[in-house]
Amino acid sequence: MDYHPINIQEKLTKFREYWSPRVIAQMNDYQFKLVKVKDEFVWHNHPDTDEVFIVIEGKLNIEFRDGVVTLSSGEMFVVPKGKEHKPFANEECTLMLVEPCGVVNTGDKEGKLTAQNDLWV
Amino acid sequence: MDYHPINIQEKLTKFREYWSPRVIAQMNDYQFKLVKVKDEFVWHNHPDTDEVFIVIEGKLNIEFRDGVVTLSSGEMFVVPKGKEHKPFANEECTLMLVEPCGVVNTGDKEGKLTAQNDLWV
Repeated sequence: MDYHPINIQEKLTKFREYWSPRVIAQMNDYQFKLVKVKDEFVWHNHPDTDEVFIVIEGKLNIEFRDGVVTLSSGEMFVVPKGKEHKPFANEECTLMLVEPCGVVNTGDKEGKLTAQNDLWV
Repeated sequence: MDYHPINIQEKLTKFREYWSPRVIAQMNDYQFKLVKVKDEFVWHNHPDTDEVFIVIEGKLNIEFRDGVVTLSSGEMFVVPKGKEHKPFANEECTLMLVEPCGVVNTGDKEGKLTAQNDLWV
């Protein structure tokens, strides 16, 4: 049988929209998503799950009510379940997110930045 | 509060042993592990879970009974639950594994390559 690797850089060429996660792999009931971000997202939290951010390229800030973490390429962070956070990036940044199937990007704060879920690329 | 990123390259400097996964992060009941590999592992499967391989540096082959997949840096693969596989690398290769807490590296084939579980670095 033919088996093919999932190539992260090749998947990144397939979309341009900011804040619109694209699923590239699923493991059990968890998904690996790529997302391109720039400027500010909205304050939100995910009441039922932790969320993993891994920076592929660029710099991502994740603001919390009591501090901020800055991630560069090759760095990751686990935002705990229920913790309010607001990602922002001064320049374009590409990330991998890992989270359960069905998690909505804006968590408890549906609005104009809420993206379609389960979009594969 | 002070928040600190998890830096993958810095974590990789903290151990040298082959085939001995080190946990660097936990999300819900899943763990992110770094592992350095070289030469052949054993045929095994994980009867209860899929397993994600992401190559950080080097080249990893994952052999199946009916084929093989070769992953380079920046490539990933999801080995399905219950699928027999044997990883091997001709030269040293560093990977990130993502799998549920408690998964043993040799799956159903305990032996001399079975590593201690839940070793954090």
